[in-house]
Amino acid sequence: MNILEIISKKRDKHELSSGEINWFVKEYTNGAVADYQASALLMAIYLNGMSRRETIDLTMAIMHSGEQLDLHDTLDFVIDKHSSGGVGDKTSLVVLPLVAACGVPAAKLSGRGLGYSGGTLDKMESIPGWTPNLSIDQIKAQVADIGLVLAGQTASLAPADGKLYALRDVTSTVGCLPLIASSIMSKKLAAGGDGIVLDVKIGSGAFVKTVEEGRLLAETMVNIGHDAGRNTVAVLSDMNQPLGNAAGNSLEVAEAIRTLRNDRSSPDDFWEHCLKIGSYMLYLAGRAETLEACEARLIEARDSGDGIEKFRQMVTAQGGSGDIIDNLDRLPQANFIADVTATSTGYIKQIDTENLGWAVVNLGGGRRQKTDPINPAVGFVMPVKVGDFVVKGQVLATIHADNVGGFNQAKQLILSSIQIVGEKVDKLPLFYGVVNSS
Amino acid sequence: MNILEIISKKRDKHELSSGEINWFVKEYTNGAVADYQASALLMAIYLNGMSRRETIDLTMAIMHSGEQLDLHDTLDFVIDKHSSGGVGDKTSLVVLPLVAACGVPAAKLSGRGLGYSGGTLDKMESIPGWTPNLSIDQIKAQVADIGLVLAGQTASLAPADGKLYALRDVTSTVGCLPLIASSIMSKKLAAGGDGIVLDVKIGSGAFVKTVEEGRLLAETMVNIGHDAGRNTVAVLSDMNQPLGNAAGNSLEVAEAIRTLRNDRSSPDDFWEHCLKIGSYMLYLAGRAETLEACEARLIEARDSGDGIEKFRQMVTAQGGSGDIIDNLDRLPQANFIADVTATSTGYIKQIDTENLGWAVVNLGGGRRQKTDPINPAVGFVMPVKVGDFVVKGQVLATIHADNVGGFNQAKQLILSSIQIVGEKVDKLPLFYGVVNSS
Repeated sequence: MNILEIISKKRDKHELSSGEINWFVKEYTNGAVADYQASALLMAIYLNGMSRRETIDLTMAIMHSGEQLDLHDTLDFVIDKHSSGGVGDKTSLVVLPLVAACGVPAAKLSGRGLGYSGGTLDKMESIPGWTPNLSIDQIKAQVADIGLVLAGQTASLAPADGKLYALRDVTSTVGCLPLIASSIMSKKLAAGGDGIVLDVKIGSGAFVKTVEEGRLLAETMVNIGHDAGRNTVAVLSDMNQPLGNAAGNSLEVAEAIRTLRNDRSSPDDFWEHCLKIGSYMLYLAGRAETLEACEARLIEARDSGDGIEKFRQMVTAQGGSGDIIDNLDRLPQANFIADVTATSTGYIKQIDTENLGWAVVNLGGGRRQKTDPINPAVGFVMPVKVGDFVVKGQVLATIHADNVGGFNQAKQLILSSIQIVGEKVDKLPLFYGVVNSS
Repeated sequence: MNILEIISKKRDKHELSSGEINWFVKEYTNGAVADYQASALLMAIYLNGMSRRETIDLTMAIMHSGEQLDLHDTLDFVIDKHSSGGVGDKTSLVVLPLVAACGVPAAKLSGRGLGYSGGTLDKMESIPGWTPNLSIDQIKAQVADIGLVLAGQTASLAPADGKLYALRDVTSTVGCLPLIASSIMSKKLAAGGDGIVLDVKIGSGAFVKTVEEGRLLAETMVNIGHDAGRNTVAVLSDMNQPLGNAAGNSLEVAEAIRTLRNDRSSPDDFWEHCLKIGSYMLYLAGRAETLEACEARLIEARDSGDGIEKFRQMVTAQGGSGDIIDNLDRLPQANFIADVTATSTGYIKQIDTENLGWAVVNLGGGRRQKTDPINPAVGFVMPVKVGDFVVKGQVLATIHADNVGGFNQAKQLILSSIQIVGEKVDKLPLFYGVVNSS
């Protein structure tokens, strides 16, 4: 094998063999293929695409570049979920405890946020003492003990993905379907899920902007899951406005806890979303015959308090202080909290959700660079949605800032992101469809 | 400016601005843009192309990456030539002395051979003592003194080209028209020619294999020359068989000297080729009204002995021993010289000329790696051409090898490269056309 021949082949629109793809991933990971050669190949893949067979081969090669998590000595069936990322997406914090409370153990490896999209680990770390740094043995012990664990992605899983992603990030080769799909799915496959529910976000606050693109990405990932022998479902969900009301780490943890507690202040759209994702997880795990029955079990788990109890067990098992659940004001609090109000009366036509994500980053609640520190307290709570009628002076959002300068900057960004018009506007759907492996 | 935006733009098939192209070449040359970013951009250029305006901008940016040779304090009009490379191409050795003897001073910067294609400097270095290592001041002094100099490409001319070419070489992005054309022309423009004659080789012994590709490359380079204000002509010439009979460094020098001396043994096809290239050089320099008149002057310069005298002056001015001209056996001689004979009777249908070039490399007369040493004595002399009728046992070539092992290997390669058939075969044309700037 020869990297120049492999690059030439893809450059000239030929299909790479399984052997060539495996060789490339192996030799790139061990350093025999240089970055400048890998980036030429990635650009050729970006422009000339990959077949379904090449995409699954690439995914499997990346998966095989490191260790694989196997929980089958502890669990009969391993369920996993993944979100493609958005603004205000704290779904895992609610769904995993509920699913675990329904008797389906969940051990999820999560990542950190980068850019306008938040990360589950950053959110959970708002809880004083809580840590995601668990060894494989600790993960196994905790999932056997309480049926729920939320840990950090270990570097030993799919290491080729980290190296390839870092290169794509600095060579304008990120937004390419087979590369995105293989990156996500290699980590999911390495994490060992028998059933995988993919939450593909679509809209102004997601990296996928149109339903058509989202469906293609979902189909590509579901095909990979299917070809790798995993039961995979993708839910196409809206990200043209924040999910729920809160965006920012401790604000999202509080909203997730309120949702598990079924507080009156918890947002309906977020709960609907959690029910959809959670019911597919239970369904894949075989906990009920129909999705409706799965939804009913999730509602039961919430109403009985089993869900919030499971969350508490997970928090305390991982070193966190469980009493924040009953005292949300013990979560980190921002220094400067004030409202943004509507400057005109009318219907909310659209929300530039990516901009809202950047508002959180600007406040200090997200990262521009991987090494940036995070302020867990900052963010915003936005109770309004597209289609809502608002009157001038009505609160659009409450901003939690570190200081008045940060508040003013976020206020301008939020105001410029919300378009208010005279004519009536329809509400946005929560979902655009489901893609099943078949 | 931002390299990610520039890569994305070309990736998405948009035209890069002059500013973006200049910025890229500058920042890549100084190291601010990484190799892995440049290679992603090169692959995007390879696959999405460049407009005429982008190609000239890239050429000018590469030219401006270093010094420019300006001989106008010495010469009124600077004439230059360039060959895209082939097997047995010793044209410069004959044409430059003749053109200089016609009163048009010639100062040419040449390169070394790599792969199956030879280099002018390597050939000239067969002459004991001769050196191409001249400073700019030495070049100016010699061209003012005798009107002829043949020097090595200096590293200070178009340094970005060297860096970009080395990267293309290891990322499968060599064979791309705007990149090839800008690489060649940036060096020609930096060398300061007012008139440039391009000899574009087409066929099995050239990197351009078809007339169509050759015409496109010629048009691209002529357009660059035109847009840069240089009078440029491209001759499309055949490289489906070696040019002349000799291939290998000292063998080619001997053939060039015989041609300048008009020896009976000098090959007609090579002389015709020299006349064509030389007459365009004289024509661009305004030495005669018509190409026919230019040809007549070249023939005069040969027949009068002025051409060979000019060659001798150049050799001795650059430290070489001029007496080799009258004593060709003082050129390096191979240890093992023997013939390859035809194994069947018939017409020569085709010659795999690239293979013949590799035969010279295998004998030690060329380089696989830039740092390989060269044996100047080895190579072959092949008096037969496509269309010739040969009888079994007739000499196809005389191989000059270092030892019997090298001879046997070259013999096999030469025999397998020459196809002999029963039916009559037409001779090959010497030229496929001329491309003028207009």
